[in-house]
Amino acid sequence: MNWESIDTYAKKWVKEAGEKIRSSFDKTLDITTKSDPNDLVTNIDKETEQFFIERIRETFPDHKILGEEGFGDKLESHEGIVWIIDPIDGTMNFIHQQRNFAISLGIFENGKGRIGLIYDVVHDEMYHAIRGNGAFINEKRIPALTETTVKESIIGLNATWVMENKRIDHNLLIPLAREARGTRSYGSAALEMVFVATGRIDAYISLRLAPWDVAGGAVIIEELGGVITNLRGKNLDYLSQDSLLVAKPGLHQTILKNYLKDGNW
Amino acid sequence: MNWESIDTYAKKWVKEAGEKIRSSFDKTLDITTKSDPNDLVTNIDKETEQFFIERIRETFPDHKILGEEGFGDKLESHEGIVWIIDPIDGTMNFIHQQRNFAISLGIFENGKGRIGLIYDVVHDEMYHAIRGNGAFINEKRIPALTETTVKESIIGLNATWVMENKRIDHNLLIPLAREARGTRSYGSAALEMVFVATGRIDAYISLRLAPWDVAGGAVIIEELGGVITNLRGKNLDYLSQDSLLVAKPGLHQTILKNYLKDGNW
Repeated sequence: MNWESIDTYAKKWVKEAGEKIRSSFDKTLDITTKSDPNDLVTNIDKETEQFFIERIRETFPDHKILGEEGFGDKLESHEGIVWIIDPIDGTMNFIHQQRNFAISLGIFENGKGRIGLIYDVVHDEMYHAIRGNGAFINEKRIPALTETTVKESIIGLNATWVMENKRIDHNLLIPLAREARGTRSYGSAALEMVFVATGRIDAYISLRLAPWDVAGGAVIIEELGGVITNLRGKNLDYLSQDSLLVAKPGLHQTILKNYLKDGNW
Repeated sequence: MNWESIDTYAKKWVKEAGEKIRSSFDKTLDITTKSDPNDLVTNIDKETEQFFIERIRETFPDHKILGEEGFGDKLESHEGIVWIIDPIDGTMNFIHQQRNFAISLGIFENGKGRIGLIYDVVHDEMYHAIRGNGAFINEKRIPALTETTVKESIIGLNATWVMENKRIDHNLLIPLAREARGTRSYGSAALEMVFVATGRIDAYISLRLAPWDVAGGAVIIEELGGVITNLRGKNLDYLSQDSLLVAKPGLHQTILKNYLKDGNW
């Protein structure tokens, strides 16, 4: 498989989609909600996904597509080549802020991540990796991740997960939030993952993510030696919703062992 | 008093200081801690404050200076003209991220905010206001703030304040975090205040801020019709540490009344 060639197409389409999104800022958004009243979607989310699907179908008719807005394929396995797309990761930020959102794209082969692209549209920063070839911000290589301690870490962690909630006993995460140097929450999983990739934060935790939220970031993180599992320490399947623990090497194991009881909760 | 002239000097110095900070990115930082091990300070914080103090003393010898790093005056009142400076607001972000920090400057006359400047150094975005003349991002005017509901709000609120802590009963803030559309935490009070000013978030809450964290932002927020008090609904004195509730009009009153018991806690 010529991954460089696929990557060239992918980057070109991501940039084009970013340009369309930027030019939408002056238009009125058509905002609707999904199952959860805070799970927002706009016409731009939908149009951007359709833009990708048209391009992919035309150029790579045998590739499969898994997209947040549901215009792609219904997948039950990761056989073959699958494009996993979040046209706008951080839709709430897109609507409220016109910043702090990203296009996220992961291209997987038989379940293995090959290409990861995350595009911070507003700041024109493209985070990208082809497995085995290093990871980059635009043209600049990102250095490999190094070990750190909880005490010196900034953890991406939303307030939701240290309050009583349906997905995790919040008493597991409170000591971590307390012992870390600080916590942050930016409202885009894709951006929080590239913040881990670039060392701006040291770990990122979420309890409710879909494959398209994490696929692009996972390729980039793993290329840099970061570790990505769910909060029980298991590999993600990139087909279903799951929790997420992504962190620097060493720190990942420490969080899993010292705070998450090795997943035995 | 010629506030336009003072503003011209202030902006020039803030831009110059920003240039120095940007050029420090490739140098090694000399990081020390203050009383709290997570309260970090660098040589760049100190040098930047000294840069401002030299310029102000030279040009406005009768003005007073209140600065985070303590090179200014020891003030017991707000008589006269006082420059309130945070050379790097968000030092932890500056160290870990080389982004998401700002220079914050408020110029007060007899306790009343006259000029507010917050400079997002990395993105070269200057948020500024002279009282009565409107507020701007660079050359672009920021529209006045409009009312909103908790349900449609994004609240700037760190996880710390919904966990048991020494400063507030966390059970007061949990319902707010739950009922809001979402929470965010960026790690720089100055930036979170201009995020309220620009409508990117709708309110910002913190329990532990100093005058230099809030003085610049306060002038900008008030110019746009936003409301700023401590969490008991009282005006800030800009001399001592305090809590902070800054929000859109209407939303401020709702949060104070429905969640913070009108300050009776």
